[in-house]
Amino acid sequence: MKEFRVLEIKESIFEDNNKDAQLLREQLKNDNTFLLNLMSSPGAGKTTTLVNTINRLKNKLSIAVMEADIDSDVDARTISETGVKVIQLHTGGMCHLDADMTRQGLKGLDAKGTDLVFLENVGNLVCPAEFDTGSTKNAMILSIPEGDDKPLKYPLMFQISDVLIINKIDAMEVFDFNMELCIERVKKLNPDIEVFPISAKTGEGMEAWTEWLYKEIKGE
Amino acid sequence: MKEFRVLEIKESIFEDNNKDAQLLREQLKNDNTFLLNLMSSPGAGKTTTLVNTINRLKNKLSIAVMEADIDSDVDARTISETGVKVIQLHTGGMCHLDADMTRQGLKGLDAKGTDLVFLENVGNLVCPAEFDTGSTKNAMILSIPEGDDKPLKYPLMFQISDVLIINKIDAMEVFDFNMELCIERVKKLNPDIEVFPISAKTGEGMEAWTEWLYKEIKGE
Repeated sequence: MKEFRVLEIKESIFEDNNKDAQLLREQLKNDNTFLLNLMSSPGAGKTTTLVNTINRLKNKLSIAVMEADIDSDVDARTISETGVKVIQLHTGGMCHLDADMTRQGLKGLDAKGTDLVFLENVGNLVCPAEFDTGSTKNAMILSIPEGDDKPLKYPLMFQISDVLIINKIDAMEVFDFNMELCIERVKKLNPDIEVFPISAKTGEGMEAWTEWLYKEIKGE
Repeated sequence: MKEFRVLEIKESIFEDNNKDAQLLREQLKNDNTFLLNLMSSPGAGKTTTLVNTINRLKNKLSIAVMEADIDSDVDARTISETGVKVIQLHTGGMCHLDADMTRQGLKGLDAKGTDLVFLENVGNLVCPAEFDTGSTKNAMILSIPEGDDKPLKYPLMFQISDVLIINKIDAMEVFDFNMELCIERVKKLNPDIEVFPISAKTGEGMEAWTEWLYKEIKGE
C-alpha cells in the first residue's frame, strides 16, 4: 500500500464561496488540472467506482485523489492500492467541502501538474449539493438499491451535477428500479446531464464512462 | 389515500437545542406519546420499513407519522395509504431537524393522545446525528447494499442510535456484506444498541423488531 497523508481541514473563513469557487476553477484551468467532484449517498459505490475508473485511466493520465471523510481513512487505504497519489481529508464532522477546504486539500496533495484530481466528497445528497467546491465538473452516483425516486427527493443534487453515474446495475433484478422513469425524472431537472449506467463491480458500462471523462480532459 | 397537510418548517431560534430537546422529551412522556426518530441514508428503506411496521402495529396502538423531506411529498403519500395520520414537513434545504422543528411538526400533526409518533428524518447519516430532536428513542436503518464499513465512516450516527435496523437482508447474496463484522463494529461504538436484521420487503425479521418496539411503548 502506498503511504498517504491525513489532513485535518479547517473551516473556511471566506464569506463568498461562489466567488472563491470561481477563482479556484480558473486556477485549475491554468494549471491544466481537471478536478472532478464526486458525490453520492453513503454506500452508493463512490470508492469502488473510483478504483475501477483509476485503473482504466492511470496509464493515460496522471491522477490523484482527495478522500473526504468525517474521521476515518478506510477509503484512502483502498484507493492507495491503485498506486495513485492520495490524501485523506478529515472534515471534523462537517457534512460538505467548500472551495477553500478543497484548496487546502489540493495544497496538501501537492497536485500541481496532475491531469485529473478526484475529490470524493462526504457521502450525503443534501449538503455537498449546496457548496460549490470549485471543481471543473460535478459527478454524482445514484445506486440501483436506493430507488428511482431519489431525483424527486434530492432535486438540487441532480440539478448541479454534470454527470450522473447509475451504479450497481448488476443488482437490477433484485430491486424495483425503473431506469427509464428515473432518467426521465433526472432530465426534467437537468436536461443537459450526461447519464452512464454502470456496474463498478462487473465493469459493465465503465468503458463509456471513462471514455467520456478522458475526452472531457484531453478534448480528443 | 388519506389527506395530509404539508408544513413548511421554520429554522429554530433556540440557542440551546440539547436543553430544548430534553424539555420536549419530558413533555412527550407526560403525554404518554412515544416519539421514534428514524434516520438513514437516502434509499435505505425508511418508508417501506415504516409502512410494514405501521401495518403490524396499527390495530394495537394509535400511530401518526411526520415525514421530513427537503421539498417533495412522495413519502407522505405512500405512508398515508396505511390510513394513519401523516404530516409532511418541508425543511427548505435544511439537512436535519432539531427539537424546535420537531415540536412544530407535532403541533401541526395534532399528535396529542397518540401512542406512537414516527419522525422520518431527512435521508442523511451526518447532520441528523448531530441534533437531538427530543425523541424518546433514536432508530437508524443501515441497508445491506450500503456495506458493512458504514460504522467506521459515520460513527456518530451509530453512537447516538438506540436501535439499528439492518434492512434488505433479502439482498445479502448479491452484496459482500459481513453481518458479524458489521455488528462487531457497531457494538464497539455502542455496546447497548439493539440490532434487528430485517427485510421490509419480504417481512423477515419484522416480528422481532415490532415486538421490541411494542414492549418499549407499552412495557409488557
